[in-house]
Formats: sequence, structure tokens, C-alpha cells
Amino acid sequence: MELRYIEHIGIAVQDLCAAIRYYEDVLGLTCYSIEEVTDQKVKTAFFRIGQTKIELLESTAPDGPISKFIEKKGEGIHHIAFAVKNIEGQLSDASSKGVQLIDTKPRKGAEGLDIAFLHPRSTMGVLTELCENKRQH
Amino acid sequence: MELRYIEHIGIAVQDLCAAIRYYEDVLGLTCYSIEEVTDQKVKTAFFRIGQTKIELLESTAPDGPISKFIEKKGEGIHHIAFAVKNIEGQLSDASSKGVQLIDTKPRKGAEGLDIAFLHPRSTMGVLTELCENKRQH
Repeated sequence: MELRYIEHIGIAVQDLCAAIRYYEDVLGLTCYSIEEVTDQKVKTAFFRIGQTKIELLESTAPDGPISKFIEKKGEGIHHIAFAVKNIEGQLSDASSKGVQLIDTKPRKGAEGLDIAFLHPRSTMGVLTELCENKRQH
Repeated sequence: MELRYIEHIGIAVQDLCAAIRYYEDVLGLTCYSIEEVTDQKVKTAFFRIGQTKIELLESTAPDGPISKFIEKKGEGIHHIAFAVKNIEGQLSDASSKGVQLIDTKPRKGAEGLDIAFLHPRSTMGVLTELCENKRQH
């Protein structure tokens, strides 16, 4: 696989408004976008920091993946997302090396990116997302 | 506070050798340094990716913080580290805004950086490290 840089870090929070206040007032970052991804049952808030971003994730449904994550592990870092080119090729490379894919083909994520998740079972416990911005090519 | 960029992401692993193999052979990154931090009871392996780094952490003692983390939450993302200037000033700013500090003053971490941790209790569940490379100024 070929990873370009860390596109974002996803962080599960109970209360998006309180979390945005912490990231802005204490950490000094600026929230530049709030977006609901209905498909994933989350409301997200984005902050730029250097080359990468922080994506805060609040669940919009009790059966959503972020609710389940918080129930099991508590609030905290949820996933790491790598920017790639040719996401389809990266997925087939990962699969050929024995990685279990959550998404066998890319789907639309926040910010209009094409995204796909690798299963933490085969990535040393790290829920791993691949992201491609096809509009950049 | 003023955060410059994400200096690294710390990831707790059971078996450093197996994890290095995964990061190299599957993800295509290159381990450029392996270092033991006796103070923290960890052996670390570093990988560069874009502006930031991935730091794999294997415990060297059953009572070390990484052993305890894995026992409680399983392998996975352990902390996020932000590069800062004037780490002492950032710590006092965080403290004045109600953040509980694990380290009230900086100590030496991996790669010779001055580091200090903020308590996840007051950072929305995210174990947060500040890092300063005083040799860069």
C-alpha cells in the first residue's frame, strides 16, 4: 500500500457542542465545518491542524457505530484516516495481503471524499480509514 | 493554547515485531528508529508519514501504562501528540483553563523531545501529549 499522509484523526465524543468548545477555547483550534453523515449516523465537526484534520464524531442514533464505540470503550480516539491515491487499488492491495476490509469498495464520506475502512481485527486494533479526494487529481 | 501540528500518534501494540511487520509490509511505511523509554516502561518504533509520525508502543513491564491500557481497552490508538513551542507556557495556559495535567512540568520523552501529558479526564477522553523539540529553535 502507499499512504500519503494522515488525512484526519476521528474522535468519538458524547456531546459535539461541548467538544467543539474544548477544541476551540482550550486547544485554540477553529471548527471550519459541521456536517451530518446520515449513512454513518454521525454529526461531525472538523478542525485543521498542520497537514491533517481532527474530526469529532457525535452519534445521531443509539444503534450507530459511535454510540457502540463509546459504550464499549468510552469517549476517545476512534479511527485514523490515511490519504491515498487510487483507493480501489489500495483496497485490493490490502486485501491481497490478508487485511479484512469493512468496505470492499469506496463509498462517500464527509467532505465528499471517497472512503473505505479496514477492519481493526487485521490492523493491530486500529480502525483504519482510507480517503481519496478524487476532485484533487 | 497554540498547537502547531500533530507530532505523532501513539499506538499500543502487544507485539512490537509483529506490528512493525504490519506497518512495513502491509501499510508500506518504514521504521526509522526503535527506542526504549525506560521511564515509561515502553519500547517504541517510529514511522514517518507526511508531516507527522506513528509511534508504536510495546510495554516492557506488566505494570506499565501500555500494559494497563491494553488490558482495559485492547490494542489500538493510545494518544495524540501535538507539537508546540514554549511547552511550559502551553501547560500553564491549559491548567488555567481547567485542564488536569499529568505532568505539571516537561520531562524527556522519546527522540529527545520535551514532553508532557494532559489527563484524558479533561480532554474528552483523549490522552493528549504536548511535545517540544528545543533543539529546533
